[in-house]
Amino acid sequence: MGRWAPDARGRLIRSALELYAERGFEQTTALEVAERAGVTERTFFRYFSDKREVLFEGSRNLQDVIVTAIAAAPSSTGSIDAVATAIESAASLLPNREYSRQRAAVIAANPSLQERELLKLATLAGAMVEALHRRGVAKLAAGLAAETGVTVFKIGFETWIGDESTQELAQCIREALDQLKNLTAGA
Amino acid sequence: MGRWAPDARGRLIRSALELYAERGFEQTTALEVAERAGVTERTFFRYFSDKREVLFEGSRNLQDVIVTAIAAAPSSTGSIDAVATAIESAASLLPNREYSRQRAAVIAANPSLQERELLKLATLAGAMVEALHRRGVAKLAAGLAAETGVTVFKIGFETWIGDESTQELAQCIREALDQLKNLTAGA
Repeated sequence: MGRWAPDARGRLIRSALELYAERGFEQTTALEVAERAGVTERTFFRYFSDKREVLFEGSRNLQDVIVTAIAAAPSSTGSIDAVATAIESAASLLPNREYSRQRAAVIAANPSLQERELLKLATLAGAMVEALHRRGVAKLAAGLAAETGVTVFKIGFETWIGDESTQELAQCIREALDQLKNLTAGA
Repeated sequence: MGRWAPDARGRLIRSALELYAERGFEQTTALEVAERAGVTERTFFRYFSDKREVLFEGSRNLQDVIVTAIAAAPSSTGSIDAVATAIESAASLLPNREYSRQRAAVIAANPSLQERELLKLATLAGAMVEALHRRGVAKLAAGLAAETGVTVFKIGFETWIGDESTQELAQCIREALDQLKNLTAGA
C-alpha cells in the first residue's frame, strides 16, 4: 500500500493497539505495527516518535481543548469547578469505551506505558495550572485545583471503563467530583 | 575501598545526586557514581537495579509506614483525613529540605526520572486504596481519597522545597489539605 493510503494514522493506532493486546507491548516492533496497518516503518515514524507515543495520540489536542475551556469559564466560577467542567467538556474527544478499555488494559500491563501515561497527565496538570494562573488563581490553589482535576478525570475514567458502567464519561467525571466534595466536607 | 566500606548505600545515594546535578542524569554512568562513592560498580548494582532507582531509595519504606498508619486510624476518621494524617506522619522520613530540593531539581530536569517518580506515587496511591478497602471504604471513595492524598503530598512538598518555605513538610501537607477543603467547599 502506498505512502498516501488514506487514514494511515488511524490504521496505525488501531494496529498498534491490536498487536500490543495480542502479543504484549515489549514483544511488538514498530515495523510489525506498520505492516499490519499496510504502510512502511518509515511512515510509522513520520507519525509517531516511538512505539509508546502511538497510544497517546490526541493527548495534546485534549490538553488544548481543556486549557481553552478553563480560560472561557465565567470569572465567578471557582477554580476546581472551572477545571472539572473543562475536563468534562473534553471527555467526548476520547475514543469510544471499548477502545479506551482495551487501551487501558494494555497500559496497565506495562510499567513503561504507565509511566508515559502518568507523565501525560502531569503535563496536562501543568498546563491547567498555567491556565488558572492567567485567571488570577494563586499558585497553591491552582496546583490543588489542577491535581484534583486529574484525580476526578482518572477516577471517572476508571468508573467509565468498568464492567458495570452505563453512563457517559462526562457524567462519571461529574459524579467523581461530587463524591470528592462530599468526602472533603465530611472528613 | 573494600566492598564492606561502611554506609556504601548512603554514599552511593549522595554521590549519585551530586553527579546527576553536576553533569546531568543521562551523562552519568553507574560506574562513575560507584567511583565517587569509593565502591565498585558491582556494589552499586547490589544495592540498586538501575541508575534511576538510586533516587528512589526509601520509597517502599515510606509506603509501608503510610499503609500501617491508615490501618491504625480510628474507625471514626474519614478516609481523606486518614490518608492525609498517615502521609503527614511519614513526612519526617523524607531526607532534609536541602537534599529534597536538589533531588527535585534533578528529577524535574529529566523526563525519564519524572516518569519514575510519578509511577512511585501511583504505586503509593494503589497501596493506599488497598489499605482503605481493608477499612471497608468503597472503591470510588477509596480511589478519590488516595489520589487526593497524593495531591496534598505533592503540593505540600512543592511548598516545602520552595524558596520562601519556613514550615515543616507535615505542616505544608496539612495546609494543602485545609486549602483543598476550602476550595471544594467554595466551588
